[in-house]
Amino acid sequence: MEGKMKVAVMNGVGKMGFVERDIPVPKDNEVLIKLEYVGVCGSDLHFYEMGCIGDIKVNPPFVLGHEPGGVVVEVGKDVTHLKVGDRVALEPGKTCGHCEFCKSGRYNLCPDVEFFATPPFDGVFQEYVAHEAELCFKLPENVSTMEGALIEPLAVGFHAARQGGAHMGQTAVVLGSGCIGLVSMMALKALGVSRVYVSDVMQKRLDKAMELGATGVINAAKEDTVKKVLELTGGKGADVIIETAGTETTSQQAVFMAKKGANVVLVGYGKTGYINMPMSLALDKELTFKTVFRYRNIYPMAIEAVASGKINLNGIVTNIFDFDDIQNAMDSSVKDKANIVKSVIRIAK
Amino acid sequence: MEGKMKVAVMNGVGKMGFVERDIPVPKDNEVLIKLEYVGVCGSDLHFYEMGCIGDIKVNPPFVLGHEPGGVVVEVGKDVTHLKVGDRVALEPGKTCGHCEFCKSGRYNLCPDVEFFATPPFDGVFQEYVAHEAELCFKLPENVSTMEGALIEPLAVGFHAARQGGAHMGQTAVVLGSGCIGLVSMMALKALGVSRVYVSDVMQKRLDKAMELGATGVINAAKEDTVKKVLELTGGKGADVIIETAGTETTSQQAVFMAKKGANVVLVGYGKTGYINMPMSLALDKELTFKTVFRYRNIYPMAIEAVASGKINLNGIVTNIFDFDDIQNAMDSSVKDKANIVKSVIRIAK
Amino acid sequence: MEGKMKVAVMNGVGKMGFVERDIPVPKDNEVLIKLEYVGVCGSDLHFYEMGCIGDIKVNPPFVLGHEPGGVVVEVGKDVTHLKVGDRVALEPGKTCGHCEFCKSGRYNLCPDVEFFATPPFDGVFQEYVAHEAELCFKLPENVSTMEGALIEPLAVGFHAARQGGAHMGQTAVVLGSGCIGLVSMMALKALGVSRVYVSDVMQKRLDKAMELGATGVINAAKEDTVKKVLELTGGKGADVIIETAGTETTSQQAVFMAKKGANVVLVGYGKTGYINMPMSLALDKELTFKTVFRYRNIYPMAIEAVASGKINLNGIVTNIFDFDDIQNAMDSSVKDKANIVKSVIRIAK
Amino acid sequence: MEGKMKVAVMNGVGKMGFVERDIPVPKDNEVLIKLEYVGVCGSDLHFYEMGCIGDIKVNPPFVLGHEPGGVVVEVGKDVTHLKVGDRVALEPGKTCGHCEFCKSGRYNLCPDVEFFATPPFDGVFQEYVAHEAELCFKLPENVSTMEGALIEPLAVGFHAARQGGAHMGQTAVVLGSGCIGLVSMMALKALGVSRVYVSDVMQKRLDKAMELGATGVINAAKEDTVKKVLELTGGKGADVIIETAGTETTSQQAVFMAKKGANVVLVGYGKTGYINMPMSLALDKELTFKTVFRYRNIYPMAIEAVASGKINLNGIVTNIFDFDDIQNAMDSSVKDKANIVKSVIRIAK
Repeated sequence: MEGKMKVAVMNGVGKMGFVERDIPVPKDNEVLIKLEYVGVCGSDLHFYEMGCIGDIKVNPPFVLGHEPGGVVVEVGKDVTHLKVGDRVALEPGKTCGHCEFCKSGRYNLCPDVEFFATPPFDGVFQEYVAHEAELCFKLPENVSTMEGALIEPLAVGFHAARQGGAHMGQTAVVLGSGCIGLVSMMALKALGVSRVYVSDVMQKRLDKAMELGATGVINAAKEDTVKKVLELTGGKGADVIIETAGTETTSQQAVFMAKKGANVVLVGYGKTGYINMPMSLALDKELTFKTVFRYRNIYPMAIEAVASGKINLNGIVTNIFDFDDIQNAMDSSVKDKANIVKSVIRIAK
Repeated sequence: MEGKMKVAVMNGVGKMGFVERDIPVPKDNEVLIKLEYVGVCGSDLHFYEMGCIGDIKVNPPFVLGHEPGGVVVEVGKDVTHLKVGDRVALEPGKTCGHCEFCKSGRYNLCPDVEFFATPPFDGVFQEYVAHEAELCFKLPENVSTMEGALIEPLAVGFHAARQGGAHMGQTAVVLGSGCIGLVSMMALKALGVSRVYVSDVMQKRLDKAMELGATGVINAAKEDTVKKVLELTGGKGADVIIETAGTETTSQQAVFMAKKGANVVLVGYGKTGYINMPMSLALDKELTFKTVFRYRNIYPMAIEAVASGKINLNGIVTNIFDFDDIQNAMDSSVKDKANIVKSVIRIAK
Repeated sequence: MEGKMKVAVMNGVGKMGFVERDIPVPKDNEVLIKLEYVGVCGSDLHFYEMGCIGDIKVNPPFVLGHEPGGVVVEVGKDVTHLKVGDRVALEPGKTCGHCEFCKSGRYNLCPDVEFFATPPFDGVFQEYVAHEAELCFKLPENVSTMEGALIEPLAVGFHAARQGGAHMGQTAVVLGSGCIGLVSMMALKALGVSRVYVSDVMQKRLDKAMELGATGVINAAKEDTVKKVLELTGGKGADVIIETAGTETTSQQAVFMAKKGANVVLVGYGKTGYINMPMSLALDKELTFKTVFRYRNIYPMAIEAVASGKINLNGIVTNIFDFDDIQNAMDSSVKDKANIVKSVIRIAK
Repeated sequence: MEGKMKVAVMNGVGKMGFVERDIPVPKDNEVLIKLEYVGVCGSDLHFYEMGCIGDIKVNPPFVLGHEPGGVVVEVGKDVTHLKVGDRVALEPGKTCGHCEFCKSGRYNLCPDVEFFATPPFDGVFQEYVAHEAELCFKLPENVSTMEGALIEPLAVGFHAARQGGAHMGQTAVVLGSGCIGLVSMMALKALGVSRVYVSDVMQKRLDKAMELGATGVINAAKEDTVKKVLELTGGKGADVIIETAGTETTSQQAVFMAKKGANVVLVGYGKTGYINMPMSLALDKELTFKTVFRYRNIYPMAIEAVASGKINLNGIVTNIFDFDDIQNAMDSSVKDKANIVKSVIRIAK
């Protein structure tokens, strides 16, 4: 499919623009995707606002966006499981398949991964992308391409819940009710955990958590979260805690509210890179801390959870912006974190 | 077996004394043990020096000592697997057997555990003790009762190594070369890990590590431990790190020297209870932090490791004191940490 | 609570009768339960019909019944988590708490277990029973004592599903749609498995499976079960198969329909004790066979699954008999296996 | 490296011959290996004797041999971890890296694997082979290329031992003392299992087992293997049993000699494809059956075990044949199974 396509680029901190590029040609093992929706992730916003994340620097012009859903418009000759017209969710990281991490099933740790919108690899705020077919997962009829785009953050939630060994019969607490907190809560519920409590300091976000299925919420601006969780668990503490806020306060709370032998899952990144942890207490309780770096082997499960109605993924979207409006989308999402839980760019639909 | 026995008691901070008590009568499911050796643990010394560990306070007169080896001298009527004359290692924690932790195989977290020398439960710096027979493990002929006493700290090392999922083919690092560091190193080797490096700031302790089988040692007073481990692993980092020093420096080093996806096992308690951890880096590497609270289901394995010659347990003992000399044993062990790696009290032999 | 109680005894093969016995007195760690419902298990019927199961022989008079639900009427002095009036499900096996199996969390393998209605230990087709309080699980308000009785077979289903490592995103097949097949299917669904197919040769049982939530059913009398499962899975086969029928045909089907790397869970006992398995194919696929002996650590989870509405436990009951009608209950259940999926005895209510 | 090479081909059942082919040209991610030793596997002999294994048929001329060790003589331009002159062990299966099995770390189940000497893919009874560099593992100085060749069968032994969850403190039994039985026994020992017993009906093979480190052996032609194992374990049975003989007798023995909760690992293929198993007993003991299809992620560990002196791999070789003598090598190995435990072809050295 020859021709030109529109690509949104970050030209510098706080500066979006558009350029025209050739529509890519899929290789034999790839498909060409016409993108319909691409979610805006916190990391996109961080790059946009700061020009970097830690040591990873944006070198403009750079294409952000790594949460894509779209339609197959061309199929490489070795591809058998997809055909033109299939709607798909795209897993954004292409891995080598042959290093020790890939070989042992932990491909999210592959040192040679090429991940959308992680410098130096461009993202997908653009009209088309050619992508490895094995990373494009066909959506059932009742799952939209916008939901397909949101499978990416949901995958983080599922990976967090699985890292925590979450299962029916447990009590779980999610600290932070932003996008990742909400998908973690929904993943926990979908995996059979009956009691999932969510804590945050913004009531609006907690209302969203209740709307999406939380068992209960704790407004940490008004209540003592740890005390409340201990009350709710008969003094025993929670079996699984997923920390998504990335603050020292919540990280410490995770330890205080944990049951003996519990799993604490750390997902949120802190501002300084360091967290002061009450480790002696953690040892007394023999806690396990699992961390989350992206996800692995989650897409089929996450799509199924949405298709089966267990997860209301549309519910996390608070704002949909047109592609042409992407500067505004980025600016608004940076400025209004209290109200904008999740933005999505409608590329074409 | 009626009569009186000699019991060493802690009468206050830094004050040991002796009292006479009745020789205990074993219950139907118990055996009476004539103690031969009891090891001196860091926690005994801490209680002795400070009068407490965290919130747990000694209420004198209190009996310290929880690393016992001895000989069966009387057998309760329901006991079938032991007989008079059997030499045994005593696992010091009696658990309920029926709570959710016991039922799920994590009996070390039983809230009703009665553990020797943990207030309010007396320890075993005394001539006899009656103990649950299922917690008394018969020693093979080639394992002495002094080694039997030292099975207790060795069990911590094995539990740490197992919490770390250690196995052949990995590179492991032990931070800290005190008693627990040494037993962790030996446990790792016994479990098949070929490359085990030990780091400490005291050369004497490192010499001991080499003598007992470490693959190599790093004197952190002279070398950059992290840099050295990265060199030794071709820049990849270690698969398993066991932190036994309990300092912020070593805890942070554990993260810096860890390979992606590695397991960091935290065993050492810090002075303030808090450790400032480089958590963002830990997330980038998707590390797992396991912690260690005592041990579970380890005694048979640890005894076998000693019996089979895989572990030289006598080698960690630097000082043997007679029972009558216990005040000196405690005082010396507190004062001369550079030279005294491990003291043992010879109760009778 | 002094007095006499009515006890149904098996006086020989096919012969039930009643005797009067003293109401038992609970020990300090026990509670006295007034039984309301007791389910009739296949093993009760087997003992009733044959006088034995394998080498385990009934020595009349013997009390059958090990699926009890009732109300606490008296509380031993050491019991703190239950009070008079609490409605409870009783886990029927009292274990030692101190052997290697108990200590490692596999208490269902305890060699000293005392299990209701497994000779020489009497069961609970009687008005009262004194039982270890830790084995009596309080029922929430919305769970009846009849459901409480049925927690026992449901626990087998949950254990089977967990032995199979079942989780969301998988396709599971349950072979056999009797009581254990149905509870296994419901447990799989409750644990998040979206696609659960059930196969049997009796349409009535398959209708029941559909009614209780199966994704689909396969009438093996009319269709080729293996072919159908391969069709339903795009030729790949099922991820988890739970065999509950105990026949050679279904056991072999399990291997033929399994995906590479799948888990096959064997629950059903065959008539001869032997099953001829296509092991070379199992090796080619690198299958794992897990087996099920009762269950462990399941009651709280199973009760929660019922309370949360994930499982319709009443739905498996096809027949309720009064206590006085127990001879008829046993005879009918033995004779009419096509129609009677599950009988329950109403002791008092 | 242009030129011709000598290739041994199977021209039909029982007929070896030689042909000349072009020396292959390595791709960018490949290395060219000059082969020094190639082991003769039971599957090579089976193809040679029968022309097939199950449904997999040899289409002559076909190259057998999949246990190669050699020297790097040319390096593809993308290869960084190997250089000319490196001696290597070659893992024989090239996998896709992107299917669900590869992605989840179970690459041995990849449906698109290209495995040496498994039709239609030629093996390596030839002078050179070009192979994916990531599948070529550099040998330490103290490991020969003949040992390198034997890493392949050793990998099966390690995979079997790991599938069995083998660890220190257990008692293991290996049924069958052929090549795979011997490497399984050595793998168990290297992984820290102290007590490993081997059973076979040929005393010569048992002598070999003792020579290579077995704790004890059982001549099943003279003793009751099950009875003996029960005696050796105080009536409890073995924790891990690895069945390598592929007979119904030994498979049944595995169940009879297993401890409650034990793991039975099935490695040997039977003649009919079916094994009649005492499944009711297996259920009573809640056994797990793991099966073995090749191996995954084992080579580095296996090489290290040999390099560290834990495993005497040369010890399993009973016969070394020159490349020109390959017809005799195959014929002798087929005919004299009692004396020839393991043959190796010396291609060049």
